[in-house]
Amino acid sequence: MTAHLSDTPDAVTVALVQTDASEQIEANVSDALRQIATAAEQGARIVCLQELFATRYPCQSEDHSRFEWAEPIPGPTCGRLQQAAKEHQVVLIASMCERRAAGIYHNTAIVIDADGRLVGRYRKMHIPDDPLYYEKFYFTPGDLGFRCFKTRYGQIGVGICWDQWFPEAARLLALAGAEFLFFPTAIGWLAEEKSTVGESQLAAWETMMRSHAIANGLFVAAANRVGTEDRLEFWGSSFVADPYGTVLARAARDQGQILLASCRRSLVDVARTHWPFLRDRRIDAYDGLAKRWGC
Amino acid sequence: MTAHLSDTPDAVTVALVQTDASEQIEANVSDALRQIATAAEQGARIVCLQELFATRYPCQSEDHSRFEWAEPIPGPTCGRLQQAAKEHQVVLIASMCERRAAGIYHNTAIVIDADGRLVGRYRKMHIPDDPLYYEKFYFTPGDLGFRCFKTRYGQIGVGICWDQWFPEAARLLALAGAEFLFFPTAIGWLAEEKSTVGESQLAAWETMMRSHAIANGLFVAAANRVGTEDRLEFWGSSFVADPYGTVLARAARDQGQILLASCRRSLVDVARTHWPFLRDRRIDAYDGLAKRWGC
Repeated sequence: MTAHLSDTPDAVTVALVQTDASEQIEANVSDALRQIATAAEQGARIVCLQELFATRYPCQSEDHSRFEWAEPIPGPTCGRLQQAAKEHQVVLIASMCERRAAGIYHNTAIVIDADGRLVGRYRKMHIPDDPLYYEKFYFTPGDLGFRCFKTRYGQIGVGICWDQWFPEAARLLALAGAEFLFFPTAIGWLAEEKSTVGESQLAAWETMMRSHAIANGLFVAAANRVGTEDRLEFWGSSFVADPYGTVLARAARDQGQILLASCRRSLVDVARTHWPFLRDRRIDAYDGLAKRWGC
Repeated sequence: MTAHLSDTPDAVTVALVQTDASEQIEANVSDALRQIATAAEQGARIVCLQELFATRYPCQSEDHSRFEWAEPIPGPTCGRLQQAAKEHQVVLIASMCERRAAGIYHNTAIVIDADGRLVGRYRKMHIPDDPLYYEKFYFTPGDLGFRCFKTRYGQIGVGICWDQWFPEAARLLALAGAEFLFFPTAIGWLAEEKSTVGESQLAAWETMMRSHAIANGLFVAAANRVGTEDRLEFWGSSFVADPYGTVLARAARDQGQILLASCRRSLVDVARTHWPFLRDRRIDAYDGLAKRWGC
């Protein structure tokens, strides 16, 4: 499986950048570049930023002026990230609002290799629309499917936030070859819900992604933001889980942090032979998964 | 969704019968019938027995004489269970080794309605084969797919043990209309692994099934056996989770128990509108799920 990655080390340190976002885009981007440098100094080889890292979370209301926050890819911010990846020799995963054409915007994550090359992009496939998360207003659903990106430090699949609730996405990324699933995320509590269902929401969020690690025998890493923006209190809790679903590292709920975890890629092989779920899938009986209801 | 169940109460008490099995089949069946009666007295409306409840777990070695433990369905044990369901007015889920024809045996769960009628059967689709779980020797893979059974007390989907690791199975059962997923189970520790990976195995097992509850907005209930049989120490820990993945009740690891949980069926509706994952599935992009590898 990893023949083409024979020069990739087995143990790869992953860094998740969890931070609060200011209203100044330039300040956020500069801060991210500093944190990438720090993460690299601390040994990180793959660095993942939180969802839409350059801005506050834009989707708490439907506001046409927010489309100005988007950029083409490649574009200025993408270029600065490529430069940072090359300078620090790290693989980067960064989520941005992509302006693709007039009236077509995507919630997109770019993957940049450690030499600064733009390997590819993932356009968020599952778009939420819930109170304070009005993403269907802003984002055109992705049309690139679920892709695996080969990088110097491992084979990377990316989902974005809402994708993390869909086992289909994780499975497709695993079947595409991913050893790591990264989930740039922006999720938090509504004040009126936090005391009653806040804990179960956070537990469910982590449980779902740990289940992707288990079911697919791969590493899962979620980078979430912190801080309160308008009516949302983002709950942080970024984490990295190994292919058995064990949490290797978990960040605080309420403060910025560079979360590091060392991931032994060979565990993917070990997990998948000891828990051989991929061997036993009943692909003859899964047609109903492409139906909406009533299989 | 539940129009045809308009006479079904919203709050339904589920019982999971967790027990150790003796070497005497008749003793095990009699014990199960007693426990069904007790569960009904305690208010249960749906009772689920553990996997292959009538016998010790037969698959720790490949032994042709074990095929004699199988029965046709309908058959003697099925009939006694139907009588018990009618007598106690409970829905029953029971896993048995089904003799279908010479050389064709299935790991089958039957669903019996509260009037004693055999509603249908589910034949285990995902068959494991791991050290001490040599099921591929005994069991022909199921050919009935993933079905939902309408009963007096709710719409029931059934998976059996190894199925619980496959998000595809849970999703298909949800799309077929299940409000409850039951997993008769026989899983335990190998002595040489328990101290090192025992906790992570049990955590992963529960995590996977809680994720099915969350991803699909339904109740999940797993009935596992306890006790040591030959080289396997079954870990009990039967549990019921609500549609948010919250564990409503969890049994001991090392002793028999009738585990009861009251499940408000209307939570399925609430969960699925508040966490509207079924709304947003990208069924246009899931063809790869029917592939073995390399999407």
